Amino acid sequence: MEPHARRPALVHPAADALTLGDVLHALSDPTRRTIVATLHRSEGRACGTFPVSVAPSTLSHHFRVLREAGLIQQEDHGSRRWTTLRHADLDRRFPGLIDAILAVDGQPAHPA
Amino acid sequence: MEPHARRPALVHPAADALTLGDVLHALSDPTRRTIVATLHRSEGRACGTFPVSVAPSTLSHHFRVLREAGLIQQEDHGSRRWTTLRHADLDRRFPGLIDAILAVDGQPAHPA
Repeated sequence: MEPHARRPALVHPAADALTLGDVLHALSDPTRRTIVATLHRSEGRACGTFPVSVAPSTLSHHFRVLREAGLIQQEDHGSRRWTTLRHADLDRRFPGLIDAILAVDGQPAHPA
Repeated sequence: MEPHARRPALVHPAADALTLGDVLHALSDPTRRTIVATLHRSEGRACGTFPVSVAPSTLSHHFRVLREAGLIQQEDHGSRRWTTLRHADLDRRFPGLIDAILAVDGQPAHPA
């Protein structure tokens, strides 16, 4: 039995193939930054459990952009798709970058 | 005499109106990162003096994206347009961000 055989294989770029342009473009969207920030605080998540309010097709698009930019890793386990941040690859290729972006995002726009 | 009266006024967003999304989108392009990195090392530059190889219309587009994202300030002095990085505004709104991005860009993609 192959109940999930119709799902296309997930393609992830090699760590050395990640580009700063793709990563910055991926992180220019606030929903995608929320996904990355959520993963940054966890060991991984199932797809339906992110604190974002977008249509499933939109969420799929965001995951694809993040995956193709090399920010996240996704694996199918039965009917669940498990998503993790590519911490080690990102830290090696872009030291300090993700932390700097997430730190800015966590600050109020108009500090008192 | 107003020899440059036909040039439209340059509009710059207020520091408080800058968004992380606009800044990351602007910096997702390598030519725009080269412009910002060049300004980061200088007090300002005239428009034709950046080390980029693109058509004038393309360069104008890149300057507009950078200006509208709040990364650069441009002023017309006679026939010259002078461009500076908005260091103070960027450091206040996005502490450490520009440095982190430029630092990554300066590193080799495949360290030995």
